[in-house]
Amino acid sequence: MASGPFDLRMGALRRAYQAGTITPSDLVQHILSRLDDADQSAVWISTTTKDKLIARARELEGLADSGRDLPLYGIPFSVKDNIDVEGEETTAACPGFAYRAEHSATVVERALAAGAIYVGKTNLDQFATGLVGVRSPYGIPVNPFNADYIPGGSSSGAAVSVATGVVSFAFGTDTGGSGRIPASYNGLVGFKPAPGDWSRHGLVFACRSFDTPSVFTNGLEDALTVDGAVRGPDGLDPYSTDFMRSDDGTPRVAVLQPDLARNLCEPEILGLFQEACDAISTLFPSVTPADLSPFQALNDLMFFGPLLAERDVSVGAFIDAQPDACHPIVASLVQSSRKFTAADAYRALYRIRDTQGETAGFWKKFDVMITPTVSSFITLAMCEDDPLGPNFRNGTFTNFANPLGLAAIAVPFGHSEAGVPWGITLYSPPERVPAMIQVAASLEQRGHAAEPHLMSASES
Amino acid sequence: MASGPFDLRMGALRRAYQAGTITPSDLVQHILSRLDDADQSAVWISTTTKDKLIARARELEGLADSGRDLPLYGIPFSVKDNIDVEGEETTAACPGFAYRAEHSATVVERALAAGAIYVGKTNLDQFATGLVGVRSPYGIPVNPFNADYIPGGSSSGAAVSVATGVVSFAFGTDTGGSGRIPASYNGLVGFKPAPGDWSRHGLVFACRSFDTPSVFTNGLEDALTVDGAVRGPDGLDPYSTDFMRSDDGTPRVAVLQPDLARNLCEPEILGLFQEACDAISTLFPSVTPADLSPFQALNDLMFFGPLLAERDVSVGAFIDAQPDACHPIVASLVQSSRKFTAADAYRALYRIRDTQGETAGFWKKFDVMITPTVSSFITLAMCEDDPLGPNFRNGTFTNFANPLGLAAIAVPFGHSEAGVPWGITLYSPPERVPAMIQVAASLEQRGHAAEPHLMSASES
Repeated sequence: MASGPFDLRMGALRRAYQAGTITPSDLVQHILSRLDDADQSAVWISTTTKDKLIARARELEGLADSGRDLPLYGIPFSVKDNIDVEGEETTAACPGFAYRAEHSATVVERALAAGAIYVGKTNLDQFATGLVGVRSPYGIPVNPFNADYIPGGSSSGAAVSVATGVVSFAFGTDTGGSGRIPASYNGLVGFKPAPGDWSRHGLVFACRSFDTPSVFTNGLEDALTVDGAVRGPDGLDPYSTDFMRSDDGTPRVAVLQPDLARNLCEPEILGLFQEACDAISTLFPSVTPADLSPFQALNDLMFFGPLLAERDVSVGAFIDAQPDACHPIVASLVQSSRKFTAADAYRALYRIRDTQGETAGFWKKFDVMITPTVSSFITLAMCEDDPLGPNFRNGTFTNFANPLGLAAIAVPFGHSEAGVPWGITLYSPPERVPAMIQVAASLEQRGHAAEPHLMSASES
Repeated sequence: MASGPFDLRMGALRRAYQAGTITPSDLVQHILSRLDDADQSAVWISTTTKDKLIARARELEGLADSGRDLPLYGIPFSVKDNIDVEGEETTAACPGFAYRAEHSATVVERALAAGAIYVGKTNLDQFATGLVGVRSPYGIPVNPFNADYIPGGSSSGAAVSVATGVVSFAFGTDTGGSGRIPASYNGLVGFKPAPGDWSRHGLVFACRSFDTPSVFTNGLEDALTVDGAVRGPDGLDPYSTDFMRSDDGTPRVAVLQPDLARNLCEPEILGLFQEACDAISTLFPSVTPADLSPFQALNDLMFFGPLLAERDVSVGAFIDAQPDACHPIVASLVQSSRKFTAADAYRALYRIRDTQGETAGFWKKFDVMITPTVSSFITLAMCEDDPLGPNFRNGTFTNFANPLGLAAIAVPFGHSEAGVPWGITLYSPPERVPAMIQVAASLEQRGHAAEPHLMSASES
């Protein structure tokens, strides 16, 4: 994996910069040469200009000896196109919705301040409404492992921009799973902080109550580097919180109870999950089977319940004004929320809080919960046949996390017979993120050993 | 004030018990002799039986030498009738709604465990929907200072049960001001913790998102004794929180800007408020005039906005099923919430959170904010002429506190020419409650010196 000329993992880039074997200018030339390749089809909604990329590289080279702490020095990244970048258009995958952003989102601003190189805006399920990656007028980013399969969504272009080796990290967003499902389909780490841990200032909201930016990377270490550079309170986001992370003792790990997995996953994924469970048991002998039902009881709120009305607040007026500008599935989903009353919305809030109460005992016993990331492998054809079912199924293990305030890391762990990557997701309350990271690191090491990445192949 | 045979302030009772000059049995005989007096008219919806009161007194006498820590030993209290007491009916001031409670609310249970004596359930604006105390089929508790004026609501009977010297403390509830306004009208301290600080398990909810139990007492010390006995996390209330209170440095105090007070208060109250401001300035020379507008911008959400739909979730089905069983104003207010959509509810939530963001800077500069408790003196006749206007006006300085998560103490401070008590309210974020208590204690001392209580009069 480290053999290619441009191993984009951050440690490798950092070493290459330090050794002087490459410069940021070399890197941007490589990136420029990649943007029109076939595997980038439908990945990008816009890219920065050649001149700006070259200027940014030179700017960074000027800072190389400045002694400034630049943890993302010379690291290229993409931005999901529902996140603002100053001077660029934000489309949220709806050309008619586009506006030119006057300010960068806080996460983008912090990444740039840390020395990162902005490359462009990536495709998504329109208005981040979808978990499949096929709901965009900008086309469908090609799953680089098997073109018959979905890239996963809504952060489809984000994940593919990393998986195909054009950028080191990609900012996505995650409301119901958009920061995790594309990680699973692209063999990447997807890190989604607890809502409030990363500022949402500069996002086109899906559900403003619990949206969060997220990041896709090649490996956990890179995700943590981005986390370190962008997390923390932001006066521009009233939902921003200053979580204290506490790191004490051996992580107490729970995994989805195998009996319940049988009812929720297709057979091939059950087999992969069994392998993962075996690895987890080897690493953490005291792992305990857990009943996910109280968590999953929330799932239907997200895409069939009153939570949809949050999307209506965000983009409903636009959809009404320009219905033809919108993806029909997305528009009808958002508009369908109007049957819900204010009382329904409060009932949903109470139900979320009740579930937090019901699961409080679980989080006293455990630091980390592990589930599959996705429950089935979904092809493009399946989404064409049924635009709603596979999308909803994709959220089986992801929908509940943000309403409940959990942080999550999706970690690659094997692949299907068709070569489609698959992985598991770890969950923890915000204060127990260090335990989650510790478990993810152990599992990633194990998973990496078993599983070559696409990057190695494309580098050969 | 300490001259009567039954000074019900807790310190006086405690000393009398310790000196052996009275016993709990003596006290309950006194209480029993008071319950049918004219001043108790419409105060009580139900009272416990004579036998139970006597048995409770004997039970406590048996514990007197047990060495158990009973901070509320032999202290009589009432419970607003939207709070459950095991074995008693909860009516919420609607006879048709009544149910017999199988368990006591957590605050009641904790008070009893601390040695308190339960006397009965008090009257309220039906379903705690009102700030006046006139919306109940059980009649209107008489303001003991001037019968032409409202008792304040919704915790009308609670306040009067303390002001007339029958109990030492009264549990009320507070959503939009129900734990503060009756304190103002009855010359009492009204302490309303931040939502989540006291368990809401066992309450008939008004707005479940931010309802809180509260307490009325003769003086701050008694309120703090109750706070110490009942506060803290409760597994039965998923909204329950474990706030850390931090006590450091001289309280930084802000008062409502006099210019703004002029537009919000009637002249007589402006005069009273000016006296209070003078006292505050003497005690805290660095006090700063503050602009309340960002806080008050939330007020219209409570009784005219989508927050009303929370009441619909709580009691709407009952109102629909038995419209004739309900107070017409209360029923129509609750049903009027049905015009609001789920999107409206989320917009209201965002607005609350935005206001928290806008006021975060204020709470970095100040520990305590002081306002009048009520902006006008309201008579019963005014409420008859206009059932909505005076009620809404009563919330001018109270509505915003719970949505924003603030704690509050209403402290008596003077009276109108008609002899109706009036007071000020202190606000703080939950973690700064010790600063608020410190300021309240200074002001109470000053206020007491200026203002005799009813109790002294009725004791003469």
